[in-house]
This record gives sequence, structure tokens and C-alpha cells, in this order.
Amino acid sequence: MLAEIITIGDEILIGQIVDTNSAFISKELNKIGVQVYQITSVQDDKTHILKALTNAKENADLIIVTGGLGPTKDDITKQTFCEFFDDTLVENTEVLKNIKHIFSTYIKREPLPSNLQQAMVPSKATILNNEHGTAAGMWFESNHKVFVSLPGVPYEMKALISNDVLPRVINHFNRPFIYHKTLLTYGKGESEIQEIITSWEEALPSSIKLAYLPSLGRVRLRLSSKGYDNDFLVASVDSQMDKLYTMLDDIAVGYEDETTIQEQISEILQKENATLSLAESCTGGSIAQEITAIAGSSVYFKGGIIPYATTLKSDILGVNSSLIKEHSVVSLEVAEAMAKQCRKLFDTTYALSTTGIAGPTKGDGFDEVGTVCIAIAGPQGITSEKFSFGKPRERVIKKAVNKAFEMVLKEISKN
Amino acid sequence: MLAEIITIGDEILIGQIVDTNSAFISKELNKIGVQVYQITSVQDDKTHILKALTNAKENADLIIVTGGLGPTKDDITKQTFCEFFDDTLVENTEVLKNIKHIFSTYIKREPLPSNLQQAMVPSKATILNNEHGTAAGMWFESNHKVFVSLPGVPYEMKALISNDVLPRVINHFNRPFIYHKTLLTYGKGESEIQEIITSWEEALPSSIKLAYLPSLGRVRLRLSSKGYDNDFLVASVDSQMDKLYTMLDDIAVGYEDETTIQEQISEILQKENATLSLAESCTGGSIAQEITAIAGSSVYFKGGIIPYATTLKSDILGVNSSLIKEHSVVSLEVAEAMAKQCRKLFDTTYALSTTGIAGPTKGDGFDEVGTVCIAIAGPQGITSEKFSFGKPRERVIKKAVNKAFEMVLKEISKN
Repeated sequence: MLAEIITIGDEILIGQIVDTNSAFISKELNKIGVQVYQITSVQDDKTHILKALTNAKENADLIIVTGGLGPTKDDITKQTFCEFFDDTLVENTEVLKNIKHIFSTYIKREPLPSNLQQAMVPSKATILNNEHGTAAGMWFESNHKVFVSLPGVPYEMKALISNDVLPRVINHFNRPFIYHKTLLTYGKGESEIQEIITSWEEALPSSIKLAYLPSLGRVRLRLSSKGYDNDFLVASVDSQMDKLYTMLDDIAVGYEDETTIQEQISEILQKENATLSLAESCTGGSIAQEITAIAGSSVYFKGGIIPYATTLKSDILGVNSSLIKEHSVVSLEVAEAMAKQCRKLFDTTYALSTTGIAGPTKGDGFDEVGTVCIAIAGPQGITSEKFSFGKPRERVIKKAVNKAFEMVLKEISKN
Repeated sequence: MLAEIITIGDEILIGQIVDTNSAFISKELNKIGVQVYQITSVQDDKTHILKALTNAKENADLIIVTGGLGPTKDDITKQTFCEFFDDTLVENTEVLKNIKHIFSTYIKREPLPSNLQQAMVPSKATILNNEHGTAAGMWFESNHKVFVSLPGVPYEMKALISNDVLPRVINHFNRPFIYHKTLLTYGKGESEIQEIITSWEEALPSSIKLAYLPSLGRVRLRLSSKGYDNDFLVASVDSQMDKLYTMLDDIAVGYEDETTIQEQISEILQKENATLSLAESCTGGSIAQEITAIAGSSVYFKGGIIPYATTLKSDILGVNSSLIKEHSVVSLEVAEAMAKQCRKLFDTTYALSTTGIAGPTKGDGFDEVGTVCIAIAGPQGITSEKFSFGKPRERVIKKAVNKAFEMVLKEISKN
């Protein structure tokens, strides 16, 4: 069965926000065997929304719409659904109760008339209770098609998808299984990889699809298949993936579907009762940010220091200033000293450091923009590497962060 | 004139990546007076792409397509364009030269046959040179419509949009001006704001459109208008914005179109020759990451410390441990001491601190999950505030980061 996602909002079409809702919904639908045929972002305009709904009905069995359910005048999704289904708005007592509850519990003031107005919903809709907000989710069935309308606020939408929409979709539709497995590689480009695996790729059964996803020095290789026999599906994709892994053994970092590299690091450090600290110069907190985004990171992540100004590398971190003078602030020697000092200062099992020139100007380094040194200190000593990440700034930082996580994973997996 | 963006790639439709290309393209088109009618994400499937191209041609004058131009077998955009325009692939010597140049300069190995294959392009296409990669951009004109095909790799696509596509669009189409102005507010919900501004909103000329954009404790109010008389456009929107600002004076933070709040902070600190440091506990590097994402931040950002473990707040930052014992690690007292110590340690004009419980578990704090204390120390003393940001973790961190930037902007704007 196929689904289409329609996101409503001028803010998407003028580039004021990035639509992250679609990726979340697609991922969740995929897990339960629903293939997303298309994602369409349309304006806050009745004619346009009606056209998108009509087109989506032709292509898909399930149409999920987000956005346009707010209390203000620019939100017109409910009225549009009324027109689409030849329906009228009626007050729903459950929704009204929820609105009053949200106001008394969280907002702590009396709802305004426009807030109470949100209890007016299309009479043909089954209501999905929004525990985090005042805009109700709605489920419509019409001619064997299902239409779902959800608020555009990500955390309200996410809760409705997980708690209400997915269980209902599972009940309502007969779905195949969809299985993906993704291999993360680094060190070779996609065409080089294709060269290595070409005869295997040509012999791949037509039921299994291979995709190459290059990004910032990494290439991810995704195998996908769908069908009604889940055991067969998993076995056939896994056996092909084993072959692929063997062919690419020297550049394979690991699998990415179940756990990200950050989560793998988190698991290993927790299992080993090991701790980590960071001395981030050119990455400016980006590595710490990704680590602390994971719940439970406080168990193994003790903290970090961002010695952005060169003098702070000596003043706070205690790197010998003559070392900086001798080798330049962006050097393997300074990166290693930073990692060593950081490990001592924070008293952790491992410490990672970054120092580099993110650009656009050269700062205090002698090297080209894009030069980054990364070091990791641990019980087995210090490893360091120097990279040329090119430009622009954003890309240099992101590549350094990726590489740092790869070095951490490699180092902590040594035992 | 209208544009449509089509992004091609199964990785978008299975939720493996978030499509950020569309937002970038939409924003850039908007600046030059091109309204994006729709964004459509489709699968790596010839029939589907052809259908999307056919539909887009009905709605828009300019169709920009990204993705599917790689050297591997899953990339089929060029073949699809050939079918759409009844065209064939021919070798282009300029593209071939660029591929060889990219390989010899950056990749430093001989191109493989599949790489050289990327020089085969539809004969009817005008080539847009991709200086960062081997996949050429393409510009097609057909029946007064323009189709542009770009690689999906963001930095390659961005350079092609800025250097080639936009100048060509400006030359090729007669476009109106589009003008947006966005007011950032915090402290009131969208319905409360609507209540305050309702009579003004009703009297707003129909040529000016108002949108409410609520997000994590902030509401952005965007006024938009388009037309061929730019001076009139700017004057009429600005004068309405002045009225709006006056009505919402107590909750207005500033405008957001030209500069983000991070950029505003950057400008003020540079102008005042002031410096900033950070002691981030619960935000775990997120504030530093946003500051250092801006080029030139090393001028005013000296660095930061992430004392994630409670003991580090005393050991490295020097907060009195009895203070932590007495008031709990998440308290205004500790936040203030952290900011004060950070300012001293990093020797900066301002220092900001965060301490809180991001969740899902309570950690070392006594308070509810979502409690965050933020303090800022500066030449005029210390300001601090305690917040309840609810849950989940991701939202708590993001809200704390937003609030921190607002507090910094407020503090440094005092003079």
C-alpha cells in the first residue's frame, strides 16, 4: 500500500523553515510496511490544498496532511477538508474538554474565543486526541481511502503519529514488511565502490534494491526489499549485506539502521564503564551537542572544554605555549597535547580533541583553510590524524565532527 | 511567475534524510521575486519523475529538479529528461574537462569509466558548470518553460543556484518583487496575539498577508507582499510592521528576516569590542555550536566549558560545592556562580551559563524534568531566570538554547 504526505504552509514554500515532519512520518510509516509514494508541500491556499488532496487520492491509499490547524485566520485546513468531503464544522465536546485542560494545566489562563473555536471540527472526522496542544488530529475514511489531518507543530504531530495514527494504520490496512539495511563506509567515493561491487550488484535479485548515499566523505549503501514473508526478507537482504560487507571490509564502519554511530559509542562506553571528555576548538561544541542529544549521555560524558581562543589552550587546558609556538596551533602535536591534558583535567577514560581552521579566514593557523587535526587519548595511548576538509566552513565543521566520531568508535572498539 | 521544486530520491521518502535543499532554493528564489508554488519529493523511478515533471509544467514557469545525477546505476534523472524532451545523451567536452579537473585536483586519482560517463548529457541542455563535483547542472527551455536539473549534494547544488541559476532566472523572466518582514515575539501564544491585533489584522490591505509561526515559546509574525513597485511594497509593509511592533512592544524581540538573533549578537559584540564565554551544562554545547557556526565568531567568542558532570562544576569551573549542596545543582544560585566563574576564568565581557534537567530522568537535580536555570554575567552584574520547559529532552534543550540567545541579546543591548 502507498501513502502520500502533504505538508501545508507558506513558511515551507518561502524557505523560512525546513520541513522535518515529512522525514519523521516517512520513517515511521516505513517501519510498519507503508511505502511513501510522494511528499508534497503546498501553500496555505484552499484551491491548492484541494488540488493536492485530489491528486493524492489517485496515487495513494493513505494521505497524511500536516499543518494549518492553528487558531488564527491563516489556518484553513479544517474548512478545506469540509469542502473536500462536503462536510460542516460541529463542536466536539471531547476536543473542547482537551482545550480547557491544556489551558488550565499548561498555559494557566482562560482560553480565548479563538482557542475554543478549535473545538469546531468536521462532523465526519474521527478525533485523535492531541495531548500536547489544542489542535485535534482527525481521521477520515472515504471510498477505501484514509485521510489524516495533523497539526504542524513537530512534537504534537509526533505524539499523534506514534500513539494514534500508526496503531490505526496497522489495524486498517494489510501491509507488507519493508526491510532496509544500510552499510556505512568511508574512504572511497561512490564510483570506486561501484567498481569493486559491480558483478555482485548486477547479480542482485530484482526484489532487492541498492542505493548509494554519498555525504561528506562517507558513502552509505542501502539495501531495501519488501514482501509479506518477513523472515525470508530479512534473511535474503542480510545475506546480500554479508557479501557486500566482505567486499568492502577495509572501508566499512558499521551498520546504520538500528543505531547511529553516536548510539554505538554510547552503548560501548556504558558497557565498559568508560567515560569521555572533549576539547573542541574548531568544532566549537558540535561534537558535545551531538553526544548530549542522546538521553543518558551523562553516564559516560563528563564534559568538555571549548578553548576557541588560542591562549585558552594554554591558560585553561594547560597545553605548553612553546609547543603551540613551535608547531602552530593546528598541528598533531597540539591536538595530542590537548587530548592528553583534557583526559587529565576531566579524569576520563578517553578524551578527544579537535583543532583546525574552519574558515573562511585562516585565524591563528599556518595551514590552508580546512586543515583539521584530531587526536584521541585513551588507556592505550594517543592516536592523531591531520585532515584537509576543503571549504566552506559549515562543511569543514561537519566533516570534522563525522571523522571525530569515527575515530572515537575505532578507538573504543580496540579492546 | 511561479516555480516548482522537485526533489528526487528514495532516501527522502523513507525518511533517511531530511530534504534541506528545497528550503534553500525556495528562500533564494523568493529573494528575486519568484514564488514557489509547490515542492514535490518523488522516488528514483522514471514513471514517477515523468509524472511529476508533467504536473509541474502545468503549474509553474520554472521547474527546478535536484538529485539523481550521480555516477551509479540508481541515478536516472538524465535518462528521464531525455525521455521527457525526446532527447539523447551526448558527450560534452566541457563537462569531461571538469570531471578530469576535479579528479586531478581534489580526488587525486584517475577517474573510473563510470565517472567519465557523467560527461554524457542530454543534447538539448545548456550546461551549468559544477565547480565542486562531477555532475553537471543542466538548463532546458521548452515551450516557454524552464527546467533546471541540479545535483542533490547540498554544497554543489547551492553553488550552482547562486552562481548560475539565479542570474539566469533574473535574465530570463520578468519578475515582481517579493517582500517579507518577520517580527519575533516571545511570552504570548498566537491566539493571545491575535486578540491584541485583531482590529489591525482585519483592516490590513488584502495585498499584505499575515502569517503566525509559533515555535518553542516564540511566535513569529510574518508580513508578506508582492508587486512591481518595490519602494511602495517596502513602504507599505514597513508601515504596517511599525504598527504591529507598537501593539506588541512588550513581547517583541526584534526582526528576523535580515539577521538571525545569533547574527545580531555577533554584530553587537563586535561593534562593542566585547567578548563572550559559555558554561553550558544541560545545553551540552548546543549554544557554542550555534555561535561558532557563524564565520568570524572567533573575534568575540573566546570559548566555553561544558561541566556536564556535577563535580566538574566545582573541580574545573570553581563553583563552591557547598553552594551546590545547599541549593541543588539546578538553581539560580548555581547558575549565577557558574556564569560568574566562567566570566573570570575566560576573562570575557559576558559569560552565560545553563544548568538544568533535560530528561528523561532527573539526574542530580531536585526539580521536575524540564527545569532549566540560565544566568548571564556582564559588566552590569548578573541576571538569572528559572524556566519550566516541559519535555521531551530535545525540546527542553532547544528551548533553553533559544532562551539563552534572547537573554544574551537583551543583556548586551542594555547599553
